[in-house]
Amino acid sequence: MEVGFLGLGIMGKAMSMNLLKNGFKVTVWNRTLSKCDEVVAHGASVGETPAEVVKKCNITIAILSDPAAALSVVFDKDGVLDQICSGKGYIDIHFLEAPVSGSKQPAETGQLVILAAGDKALYEEAVPAFDVLGKKSFFLGPVGNGAKMKLVVNMIMGSVMNAFSEGLTLAKRSGLNPHSLLDVLDLGGIANPMFRGKGPEMVKDNYSPAFPLKHQQKDMRLALALGDQNAVSMPVAAAANEAFKKARSMGLGDLDFSAVYETVKLLKHSS
Amino acid sequence: MEVGFLGLGIMGKAMSMNLLKNGFKVTVWNRTLSKCDEVVAHGASVGETPAEVVKKCNITIAILSDPAAALSVVFDKDGVLDQICSGKGYIDIHFLEAPVSGSKQPAETGQLVILAAGDKALYEEAVPAFDVLGKKSFFLGPVGNGAKMKLVVNMIMGSVMNAFSEGLTLAKRSGLNPHSLLDVLDLGGIANPMFRGKGPEMVKDNYSPAFPLKHQQKDMRLALALGDQNAVSMPVAAAANEAFKKARSMGLGDLDFSAVYETVKLLKHSS
Amino acid sequence: MEVGFLGLGIMGKAMSMNLLKNGFKVTVWNRTLSKCDEVVAHGASVGETPAEVVKKCNITIAILSDPAAALSVVFDKDGVLDQICSGKGYIDIHFLEAPVSGSKQPAETGQLVILAAGDKALYEEAVPAFDVLGKKSFFLGPVGNGAKMKLVVNMIMGSVMNAFSEGLTLAKRSGLNPHSLLDVLDLGGIANPMFRGKGPEMVKDNYSPAFPLKHQQKDMRLALALGDQNAVSMPVAAAANEAFKKARSMGLGDLDFSAVYETVKLLKHSS
Amino acid sequence: MEVGFLGLGIMGKAMSMNLLKNGFKVTVWNRTLSKCDEVVAHGASVGETPAEVVKKCNITIAILSDPAAALSVVFDKDGVLDQICSGKGYIDIHFLEAPVSGSKQPAETGQLVILAAGDKALYEEAVPAFDVLGKKSFFLGPVGNGAKMKLVVNMIMGSVMNAFSEGLTLAKRSGLNPHSLLDVLDLGGIANPMFRGKGPEMVKDNYSPAFPLKHQQKDMRLALALGDQNAVSMPVAAAANEAFKKARSMGLGDLDFSAVYETVKLLKHSS
Repeated sequence: MEVGFLGLGIMGKAMSMNLLKNGFKVTVWNRTLSKCDEVVAHGASVGETPAEVVKKCNITIAILSDPAAALSVVFDKDGVLDQICSGKGYIDIHFLEAPVSGSKQPAETGQLVILAAGDKALYEEAVPAFDVLGKKSFFLGPVGNGAKMKLVVNMIMGSVMNAFSEGLTLAKRSGLNPHSLLDVLDLGGIANPMFRGKGPEMVKDNYSPAFPLKHQQKDMRLALALGDQNAVSMPVAAAANEAFKKARSMGLGDLDFSAVYETVKLLKHSS
Repeated sequence: MEVGFLGLGIMGKAMSMNLLKNGFKVTVWNRTLSKCDEVVAHGASVGETPAEVVKKCNITIAILSDPAAALSVVFDKDGVLDQICSGKGYIDIHFLEAPVSGSKQPAETGQLVILAAGDKALYEEAVPAFDVLGKKSFFLGPVGNGAKMKLVVNMIMGSVMNAFSEGLTLAKRSGLNPHSLLDVLDLGGIANPMFRGKGPEMVKDNYSPAFPLKHQQKDMRLALALGDQNAVSMPVAAAANEAFKKARSMGLGDLDFSAVYETVKLLKHSS
Repeated sequence: MEVGFLGLGIMGKAMSMNLLKNGFKVTVWNRTLSKCDEVVAHGASVGETPAEVVKKCNITIAILSDPAAALSVVFDKDGVLDQICSGKGYIDIHFLEAPVSGSKQPAETGQLVILAAGDKALYEEAVPAFDVLGKKSFFLGPVGNGAKMKLVVNMIMGSVMNAFSEGLTLAKRSGLNPHSLLDVLDLGGIANPMFRGKGPEMVKDNYSPAFPLKHQQKDMRLALALGDQNAVSMPVAAAANEAFKKARSMGLGDLDFSAVYETVKLLKHSS
Repeated sequence: MEVGFLGLGIMGKAMSMNLLKNGFKVTVWNRTLSKCDEVVAHGASVGETPAEVVKKCNITIAILSDPAAALSVVFDKDGVLDQICSGKGYIDIHFLEAPVSGSKQPAETGQLVILAAGDKALYEEAVPAFDVLGKKSFFLGPVGNGAKMKLVVNMIMGSVMNAFSEGLTLAKRSGLNPHSLLDVLDLGGIANPMFRGKGPEMVKDNYSPAFPLKHQQKDMRLALALGDQNAVSMPVAAAANEAFKKARSMGLGDLDFSAVYETVKLLKHSS
């Protein structure tokens, strides 16, 4: 099977390299062509236009940075629409916002979780590629369900991060060693990779962005809006969202979302 | 080493059996003596009074159901005070509230997490017993730190449970399959034993009490009071606490603390 | 001065009657013409189309039930655009959502508060009419500021209503007479017309809609969205919004917004 | 009727002066006797000890700064207990915490609201004095109800202050003039003396303490504890309490409780 890739950012590059390593034929396109060099050196072909990639491949995967780029690649001259026809599969992956759970490292190692929704037949055709790209793929039903699932998961994650930040602060101010708290948590019922990975960094005030706080807050906002549409009252998520907004107002939006810890730690008055 | 046990409730019995299995000499006392029969059948001796147990053993562990019982065992006639003297170790374990993390099953299998605080020398003397009783023991500093650590952990757990309940409800009302959410969560950064264990039961409205909701809410309240003393603002924990209180007002206090899910699911008006 | 009225719902009828009583010439238009009968009996003229009203009057005030109606009246054939030209004033009043604070009764008695924004010259021309329609009018700057002001005021009102509901419930459950609480509040620093007017009704579980809860919740949501745009963290408003959402999920959306009291009172479990 | 006063702080002095002006005979006692000079100059007698005051007067009113002082005046040598007997009335007034609503200025002008609870007959005997001291007195039932009522009122007030602070901040950040908001609020359904009095000061960042923030937060905490006892879930009060705690952690505890506005305004990061 020949797989096309439109977009070779951090995620697209990692995913296409992964397919190449597993014996897939891969054709790539990127607006800035030079970004294709590395994958070409590993055996990929290059398409001149999105249309050319679609013409050549059974399945084309678009993983573009924002909705504008995603639309342009479809509708512009020499775009996907020029070649899409029966027998061609087109998969749009919204990085960070929707149907992929995981970021750079899981993309490189094929450990993504793929939250697919929409055309069941296309999903099934793409499963061999998904099996390489992710440790698990889900087919979640009608279009939209992938994005909804991502929102629900990220909303829970955002609230959990706030709970963790509050607990860390309470431990420190009460005279406990925060590293002891991390150790105790890691042996108990809510032990999880996020506490394990981010906890020691947070104790050092290190918030190198893996998932920027402003994106986390956007997902909280969208999840709360989804709750509003469905009349679901979510007081804990709402409180967590306000903490993320407070962090944004403190200028922390571009740091990792764990920087919400700073809003809880806050001690001194800054006029 | 000879270890004494005052109190043979669910936890005390499981812990003393565990020590017996591992070759410790164990002497037990319980207000209702008949409760000692099973451990005696496995090789334990019986003390007539708390004082007699303390006299005979290097280390005596009290694990009593409530503070009144704990005080009585120390201060009553033939109580611990009659015999405690240099060379005698006395360890008070508050089940569910303080320095043991874990309940019946971990007690039986030696998988408790022991949060010790107070007398460092006594802690070190007791380590061989702790190594049998728990998968890990911590020495956390001055008396009080064990209870504080337990409160911090349970506070985080309570907020996390609320975040989970809100996410499950949002998923269902948005047309997602809650089992898919559980599957996706279990592959991601906040995968944890509690979601894995309680999630499928919650989807079935099963709240058989492992840790009763009213106790969880009491721990939230005490953790918030600890935060108040130390001027730590914890809006997410406060919102979670109010949800647990709402659950109590709905008559769910004796169910498992996961029953807070019912407050989020709530749809119909009950006058 | 001749004033035109497009829309004779509850508010438009009360406002045009008020102008007639105060000696203004009034020309009205309503999609269903029969609704004009009462004001015609009191001296108003009728325009066949919005365009005809605008042609005849110096200032035309549109007060329509929803945005679709507001757009149609402007852009449809024989709509406002056909006649609007220099020297013609056009004022769009969004009932309940934007620049009028107050509902039916204040409209009848000329006690509205008018939150105008946009064209300063038009505002000044309309002041004589505003002086009749309202006890006070404000000019708040660029277009949009009227709606924003309305949102801010309603957001505060929604949080205050929740605070009031919680206090009433706490008083009752603690064994205090809720009427005593109303009396004490009415003598203190936060005495206000809303407590005085709605308090006794709430104690009787009477929530006849003056301002429907679903509209109040919509305003909370929009105010929180405005806060999100401006990075303002508002945890109390967020908690209040979730309570209104809970009320919606309990089927109380069409009652008065004071019915949020029911979410606090809630005692029994309704599966 | 002869009225005794134990304690001549800000409140006690204002209240006893008020009774003197209205023709009551007043006998006062204060630990530091020199504080009695001013009221003596206006006609009061002085008692050497609390016991002497009680012996001389039909009704003795104690208004002391803290519980320790209140206990000492009753139980110490020459304290109230030495002389209290049938026919003697003793009224304990906890300033700021319990049964008086209002502070210095209302005390001077006889505009207090008196929240009495306990002995009905004593209440009735004291009514003539209460009629001078306050604009209104309530008899609220068993001992404790006065304090509870005060807590409920202050809890509502604390949430309302937060709602107001959030609204003021939202208005400013959205480009509205905060003075316009104050004007609009003052014409609407939630117009109240607190918005009118404190609003313009808050806009100027003036938080001269009328009611210190740390006392307001203490009342929120106690009201939430009362809610906990009675299983009343109060998410808005809980969110407001966390904001007051945040203000305490920012070092604002001794300013007026309106300084909670600073927690909402907070923009910059203070490491």
